[in-house]
Amino acid sequence: MIVTVTPNPALDLTWRTARLLPGESHRVDAAHSRAGGKGLNVARITHSFGYATRAIAPVAERDPVAAEFRAELADSGVPHDLVRIDAPLRRSVSIVDEGTGQATVLNERGTRLSDSARSELLATVARAAATAAVVVLSGSLPPETPEHLVGDLVRVARDAGARTIVDTSGPALLAAARAGADILKPNRAELAEATGLDQPLEGARRLVAAGARCVVVSLGEAGLLLVTADPERTWTARLDSPVSGNPTGAGDALVAALACAAVDGKAPWTDPVPVLTRAVAWSAAAVLAPLAGTVDPGHTLLAARVVVTPIPSSTTEGRLA
Amino acid sequence: MIVTVTPNPALDLTWRTARLLPGESHRVDAAHSRAGGKGLNVARITHSFGYATRAIAPVAERDPVAAEFRAELADSGVPHDLVRIDAPLRRSVSIVDEGTGQATVLNERGTRLSDSARSELLATVARAAATAAVVVLSGSLPPETPEHLVGDLVRVARDAGARTIVDTSGPALLAAARAGADILKPNRAELAEATGLDQPLEGARRLVAAGARCVVVSLGEAGLLLVTADPERTWTARLDSPVSGNPTGAGDALVAALACAAVDGKAPWTDPVPVLTRAVAWSAAAVLAPLAGTVDPGHTLLAARVVVTPIPSSTTEGRLA
Repeated sequence: MIVTVTPNPALDLTWRTARLLPGESHRVDAAHSRAGGKGLNVARITHSFGYATRAIAPVAERDPVAAEFRAELADSGVPHDLVRIDAPLRRSVSIVDEGTGQATVLNERGTRLSDSARSELLATVARAAATAAVVVLSGSLPPETPEHLVGDLVRVARDAGARTIVDTSGPALLAAARAGADILKPNRAELAEATGLDQPLEGARRLVAAGARCVVVSLGEAGLLLVTADPERTWTARLDSPVSGNPTGAGDALVAALACAAVDGKAPWTDPVPVLTRAVAWSAAAVLAPLAGTVDPGHTLLAARVVVTPIPSSTTEGRLA
Repeated sequence: MIVTVTPNPALDLTWRTARLLPGESHRVDAAHSRAGGKGLNVARITHSFGYATRAIAPVAERDPVAAEFRAELADSGVPHDLVRIDAPLRRSVSIVDEGTGQATVLNERGTRLSDSARSELLATVARAAATAAVVVLSGSLPPETPEHLVGDLVRVARDAGARTIVDTSGPALLAAARAGADILKPNRAELAEATGLDQPLEGARRLVAAGARCVVVSLGEAGLLLVTADPERTWTARLDSPVSGNPTGAGDALVAALACAAVDGKAPWTDPVPVLTRAVAWSAAAVLAPLAGTVDPGHTLLAARVVVTPIPSSTTEGRLA
């Protein structure tokens, strides 16, 4: 089973307008409303591919925003365990300009989790991890989350025998590395911010040195970079030519591919070619999909276009580009 | 009592950001969430001044957006009768750029009212109007509302012995005039759009000719214009110098002042000076108020700054400016 953990979920509201004009009024159709947060996006994708999935998130019970979240999640059919908390659910707003295709995003910060809510979240993850092949921890953390929470989540998952994949940013990314997470999935900016190193290869090596088993850096159109502790096992993977579309959710599709690979008994460090091929193909399929964060069955055609290249151990950063 | 009718209410969500950058992501605090729609804004103001008030609106019962609306309205303390309908409640979004002070607004269109919902709304207004001095009908109409609804609402209120004030736009404004509404309150753009006449004096005279007892045109910083059937009773009113601030809700404050005047037994056509003075002062106070659509007690100081001027019956539009 794939367990996804979303520590800071949100009700995602998306509006579309022909043209977004700051300072003006716009008549729009009703928002598209969805139970959101990166771990839930991952769970939707793995569930859509028929992988047994369970999504875990702390969500208030009586709050009306949470009620909308719960109703949509129930409709989605994705199995879930929502940890009941008192804090109101945050909203995340996306306004899509249909002229430029650009999304203008407002992310509410969310509300602090109480000590007991954090304990209950850990216990829920520990229980679910007992029957899971992989535990995915995705997205931001609520404000004022203690540094140790991410490490605690990685440890309870590992202690239960599950592989761990972490897609987060800032100090939480470093904490996940130190706790020995199996796969970290930062993008280029998150990696640079967390490590202070501008070059992805250098930054990824820093996270491996800190304790991560491997790091998969998403590089947008440039594909991805895999760094492991073994200097002979460093790879890049990309499409033969980039696709254009909506990149929102491409990183979640990449994480979903890594999680499904784990269920199939494949790891980036043992089977880099098939694992990275699927990761790039799903990510590109998400860019092409009309609905953000979905992976169209057409992704199988994209897999044939993925180029996976080992990087010699002597590579310096300059040769990556 | 003042009865306000909001045929197309909304959950108003307001976010603030230091700078709104289209195409970018923004971290923001939780939205300010409020039961919205112009009739509800009017009701909040009249209620805050101690005038007995009852707000009427059609609102779904089990919809989570409506649940948030109902909870906030209950908290507000404004007495209300919500007509239960099946259609989901619309949202209205306002994103305030704290740098420019500008609001970027997205208004969902709303959902059609069923025939039975419209009948129930009319019956509710008729019952409330029986003990009301004035019925205020404010804001847009739901999509696909039949032309006759506004006229029907004006007639049931008048038949119950209440004065009627209508603040709407488009064909509904013309329908209210034809139904003989006592006061219409368009702004300059709404008046021009409804009548096809660019000059406010000319447009207001057209609405009076169509059947309205009087028309109060809000002209922003230029104050307001009152036109009645009596050519000797045409007035302008404005502050001695304009105030700057947030104009959102200034029109609702103006309508609230007209409604309270009605309860006090004063009409624009019998007591133009005190009625228009209060209308301009409350409107300016709303512009100055930190929270949109509220009227600060400081408005009494503004009343001393209002200049009310009769316009000779021979006035042509050019002399208004």
